[in-house]
Amino acid sequence: MIVLGIDPGTAIMGYGVVEYGNSKHKSLAYGVIRTDKGDKTEDRLKQLFLGVNRLFDEYKPDVMAVEELFFNRNTTNALSVGQARGVILLAAGIREVPIGEYTPLQVKQAVVGYGRAEKHQVQFMIRKILGLEATPKPDDAADALAVAICYCQFGGRQSWQSTRR
Amino acid sequence: MIVLGIDPGTAIMGYGVVEYGNSKHKSLAYGVIRTDKGDKTEDRLKQLFLGVNRLFDEYKPDVMAVEELFFNRNTTNALSVGQARGVILLAAGIREVPIGEYTPLQVKQAVVGYGRAEKHQVQFMIRKILGLEATPKPDDAADALAVAICYCQFGGRQSWQSTRR
Repeated sequence: MIVLGIDPGTAIMGYGVVEYGNSKHKSLAYGVIRTDKGDKTEDRLKQLFLGVNRLFDEYKPDVMAVEELFFNRNTTNALSVGQARGVILLAAGIREVPIGEYTPLQVKQAVVGYGRAEKHQVQFMIRKILGLEATPKPDDAADALAVAICYCQFGGRQSWQSTRR
Repeated sequence: MIVLGIDPGTAIMGYGVVEYGNSKHKSLAYGVIRTDKGDKTEDRLKQLFLGVNRLFDEYKPDVMAVEELFFNRNTTNALSVGQARGVILLAAGIREVPIGEYTPLQVKQAVVGYGRAEKHQVQFMIRKILGLEATPKPDDAADALAVAICYCQFGGRQSWQSTRR
């Protein structure tokens, strides 16, 4: 099973491609897609859409994993991240790739075994699980790998839910 | 000039197509695209994307007009509307159709001449301006026509701004 993990954002979108089988995880690729804040919103969304489509073409993921987002107060940010997220979900929808959504708590549970783990613990475990020599940078790429790992854990147990919102 | 006005939302998306020339407005079409809350989010976003693309194919709008959204507190709603909005902006971006964004205040100013106008005044003026026999229903369709009319007013004066966020 190949899982494409995504950490959505308009300025910087993290991705991580994880292959999972026989209880082993392997990182096939990770990184970020950046867009220029000087560009028009619609052009930035188009860049994200094309970028995600390239990842689908190259790695042919069986599933996509995205974090469920929560915003306390910043509605402007929620709107902006929502726009980027909509484009990513659309790309999966068009290709009929199933989507798993997980709360930050579930991601930490899956990666560290403890829902209130700290960031450095999550990063340490991502390295361990994937057998990487260094912590993936930037954080957006590491977060995308984490949610992909989460899918491998929960998805394998049939306990993941597709997006219904 | 043909303007496609959009009132974005995941469950119900209003649209209004307005032709403008010689200071006259004509409604070519208006309505809503509804999606079923029982469907997966990615499928609903795909339905919106395909629906907007059909409008582009049928009416070949020169420009698209969308309201700038503000949310006071409801970040869940901002995220959901943001997702729908992202898909709509993407559709315009792919076709390289320019986008005008207006605040609710600007829309009311353009339609009624008064930024704090009440809803029934806006609806009355939409009827008058477009020469319609009845108020367009539902409200989402009327709102989409209003933002299209706003583009005709401000766009003609070169004062509109494309999305830069």
